[in-house]
Amino acid sequence: MNDESARPAIILFAHGARDPRWAEPFLRVAERVRAEAPEAAVELAYLEHLEPSLEEAARRLALRGAKAIRIVPLFLGRGGHLRIEVPARVAAVAAELPEVVIEVALPAGDDEAVIDALAQFCLRAASS
Amino acid sequence: MNDESARPAIILFAHGARDPRWAEPFLRVAERVRAEAPEAAVELAYLEHLEPSLEEAARRLALRGAKAIRIVPLFLGRGGHLRIEVPARVAAVAAELPEVVIEVALPAGDDEAVIDALAQFCLRAASS
Repeated sequence: MNDESARPAIILFAHGARDPRWAEPFLRVAERVRAEAPEAAVELAYLEHLEPSLEEAARRLALRGAKAIRIVPLFLGRGGHLRIEVPARVAAVAAELPEVVIEVALPAGDDEAVIDALAQFCLRAASS
Repeated sequence: MNDESARPAIILFAHGARDPRWAEPFLRVAERVRAEAPEAAVELAYLEHLEPSLEEAARRLALRGAKAIRIVPLFLGRGGHLRIEVPARVAAVAAELPEVVIEVALPAGDDEAVIDALAQFCLRAASS
């Protein structure tokens, strides 16, 4: 019997939008994470409009036996979504799944390598 | 006399939000671009809520003598903002400044290195 509970469980948490094509770059990120961490259970979830919600993604992982879930906010800007709505949604998930340890990573916009990649992208885009 | 018109002129164009702290990561990107391309005139502009708007940033660059402006969309998702509002705002700028060549780069979410940096960030965030 596989011990699903030993697999790292990760939710990549993005904003979402009405147009489902919004998600394309995030689906590519999730694919790459799955390819590089095949041992992990990786879900992509959305704050608004798109499915699954954070709650639904966490439920799926819990049903598959996850004992701990790490939520990774794929947000760049540090505004109300990240400061208010994300913590509120995480608290709702934690309340619904008291047997699961829920952790939240720092957001993408706080990551030095992400900032650097964006700057390098701008430099390439400016000169191409 | 400096020939300002020979300087590359770039507008980093981000979404914006009510909370001005939203912009922090984008300000860091702009700082880094300015540090690595000191010959360029770099403005950071916003689609919503924050100042300057795209139009205002373009006006500033045109007043400083820019003959060509490259707009770099710092958007990850490919939804309505990027597909509809950004082109409309760019068209408005082009109409207002007919003597300036306005070009739009591919958005950040289309950049392979940005996608890769986000995936690497997720992998680090998932295991830290």
